[in-house]
Amino acid sequence: MAPPVSPLAPETFAHLPPLDGVRLATHASGLRYKGRTDLLLAEMAPGTTMAGVYTRSLASSAPVDWCRKAGVKGKGKARALVVNSGNANAFTGRAGDQAVAATVKTAAQLIGCKETEVFVSSTGTIGVPLPFEKITAALPRAVVNLKADAWLEAAKAIMTTDTYPKLASRHVRIGDVPVTINGIAKGSGMIAPDMATMLAYVFTDATLPAPVLQKLLTKGCEKSFNAITVDSDTSTSDTLLLFATGQARHKRISDVADPALKAFREGLDAVLLELAHLVVKDGEGATKFVEITVRGAASAKAAKRIAFSIANSPLMKTAIAGEDANWGRIVMAVGKAGEKADRDRLTIRIGGIDVACNGAAVPNYDETPVTHHMKGRNIEIEVDVGVGNGRFTAWTCDLTHGYIDINGSYRT
Amino acid sequence: MAPPVSPLAPETFAHLPPLDGVRLATHASGLRYKGRTDLLLAEMAPGTTMAGVYTRSLASSAPVDWCRKAGVKGKGKARALVVNSGNANAFTGRAGDQAVAATVKTAAQLIGCKETEVFVSSTGTIGVPLPFEKITAALPRAVVNLKADAWLEAAKAIMTTDTYPKLASRHVRIGDVPVTINGIAKGSGMIAPDMATMLAYVFTDATLPAPVLQKLLTKGCEKSFNAITVDSDTSTSDTLLLFATGQARHKRISDVADPALKAFREGLDAVLLELAHLVVKDGEGATKFVEITVRGAASAKAAKRIAFSIANSPLMKTAIAGEDANWGRIVMAVGKAGEKADRDRLTIRIGGIDVACNGAAVPNYDETPVTHHMKGRNIEIEVDVGVGNGRFTAWTCDLTHGYIDINGSYRT
Repeated sequence: MAPPVSPLAPETFAHLPPLDGVRLATHASGLRYKGRTDLLLAEMAPGTTMAGVYTRSLASSAPVDWCRKAGVKGKGKARALVVNSGNANAFTGRAGDQAVAATVKTAAQLIGCKETEVFVSSTGTIGVPLPFEKITAALPRAVVNLKADAWLEAAKAIMTTDTYPKLASRHVRIGDVPVTINGIAKGSGMIAPDMATMLAYVFTDATLPAPVLQKLLTKGCEKSFNAITVDSDTSTSDTLLLFATGQARHKRISDVADPALKAFREGLDAVLLELAHLVVKDGEGATKFVEITVRGAASAKAAKRIAFSIANSPLMKTAIAGEDANWGRIVMAVGKAGEKADRDRLTIRIGGIDVACNGAAVPNYDETPVTHHMKGRNIEIEVDVGVGNGRFTAWTCDLTHGYIDINGSYRT
Repeated sequence: MAPPVSPLAPETFAHLPPLDGVRLATHASGLRYKGRTDLLLAEMAPGTTMAGVYTRSLASSAPVDWCRKAGVKGKGKARALVVNSGNANAFTGRAGDQAVAATVKTAAQLIGCKETEVFVSSTGTIGVPLPFEKITAALPRAVVNLKADAWLEAAKAIMTTDTYPKLASRHVRIGDVPVTINGIAKGSGMIAPDMATMLAYVFTDATLPAPVLQKLLTKGCEKSFNAITVDSDTSTSDTLLLFATGQARHKRISDVADPALKAFREGLDAVLLELAHLVVKDGEGATKFVEITVRGAASAKAAKRIAFSIANSPLMKTAIAGEDANWGRIVMAVGKAGEKADRDRLTIRIGGIDVACNGAAVPNYDETPVTHHMKGRNIEIEVDVGVGNGRFTAWTCDLTHGYIDINGSYRT
């Protein structure tokens, strides 16, 4: 039985317009799931450039290893993306590399491109050999079904424990030429169980060299996907890819600092942030969306560590689930972060209301409005640690019985 | 209503014998709890030496700050220990320091010692001013009730969310002179909510200089209290103190490397480890005691980081609660630890049974005996990461609905 849709899911799904130079197809290849699609094939126009950001896990999956290598060897050129759900092809030894090789070879032949122009991702159970013959058998059938208007199907095909598909889109201009940015993602938990890798693919018809794309993606990722957490666990397969098909005929851009890129950068950042938020809101068992802003830290890096110390604290997350304005746990989480904080200048606000100031509870503290805020779906926590100008915002969800239910009996 | 006693609680409590040079008294001072003791006073003989290990939290509580300072200023001499439960006296600003000062002053006058010879701890809610007048009023009544045989009462007085008192004892010899080591602890979670600071006090009648005591304690702590975790959260108040009353007339020891200390060191380590395990077994909502041994790491430090990455992973802990031999999550946790591991030589055993070997599931893996092991109370996980000789063992418990229940509605 499918789990109920997250209470934090959006009311409607973003409609993604067709994007010049991208065609999509999905297929039910029967890797694990019955009666649903589990394979996505995306074909990109010749001349497409790419950039990637991958898991930092040292036990990264065979598909991640391949993408890293292909991006470098092929100098950031891309023609195809193949994603399967149901099996992560991680921790599968040499057989994992062989499965990737077979998939890449088949796709390259079908599309008519180099193997280094084919990117692959797998998401699902860890440690189970990938029956890649099902993928290589499905690809010829997928390739004849490629079409421009299949974004929702694409977002659905890559889902695992996700309770809703995740899509985001922006129209921007480079110079006076309109450009589209479309993104899809999956993940139910920053990374939650073996079935909930975070995958995100963003496509644009802009014409941008691979090094410029990589800089835009690395920077944009820092304040979006690298600013969210559901349970502090990092998948072996996390992958974020950005493809630019080069169909939009705007002025030539060779430098990421080109002022003509401003709107594009903002649009890309917005798509990344929207997708990242959609992932958190589908966090396993989530009932609250939590924004944590840390100010006054010694540096932005210090602020990030403190924000994540709060965002990953099981005590904070259970208190939020219990709608308990338990700010003592915020103090605890700030203290354990290991970053400089002035205890006697520490200030904490919940829902915009001061609860603690200069290292102690505010005089005549009235918890009523704070408790009211805690009953809402969107929780805001602000902390000023009083030592500098470092600032960071992180997003997370609460820790509920739902998380235990989903993860305590996931495979059975 | 009191929560049910942890299913991992020992059948009986260790009986602690009287220890030369220590007298104990407990009192119900009414700080927070009704109808139970919440204050412990321990008086030590003149000449008692001490050593301490404290929380690394940068938001450490006023009592922790005091102990740190008094230990240095007083050159490791001790005459009294005052511990209250129900209020942590943490994040209470300047009022917190004043509460400590008043407690210390009163105790020093009653015992007839220097203020730097009085050590204090507080455990309970964070951010609530400590009504220290209740403590200073109770101390004169406690001091007349001091007696040698009150160890169980002492362990009970310092409990907060603990479901059982924690005690351990060993008899050893230094040379041919018998020496006793008695320890009590509290903590329900490595550190769990604001009410579950980890506190531990170990007493011995051995005659040892403070610097020797400090080296023994720092070393012993590394493989006991620093090797356990319930939820990765660190309290503002964690404190471990060791007192030596100097009543045992053994040969003079001036060097921690003296071979005559071997049995004492082993006895102390055993008391520390037993207390640490008792804390984990009372972890909030715990139903399984989990031992995680990492071998083959680049260093002992690397092994420790990997062991804690596994021990703190919510996905691992929920899988154990669900009695699911989900070793893919162990791979994930090894990968995210950020320490060197050879994916293709990674070996995982659960309950002594190989489940994965050289980077892939063992051929013809039969899950039946592993699943049987997962149904027990004591879970053993062994990981060899295949790069060196570094080794570390950590202990934790599972993550259950009980944890969410306790922490989601703790204050209400």
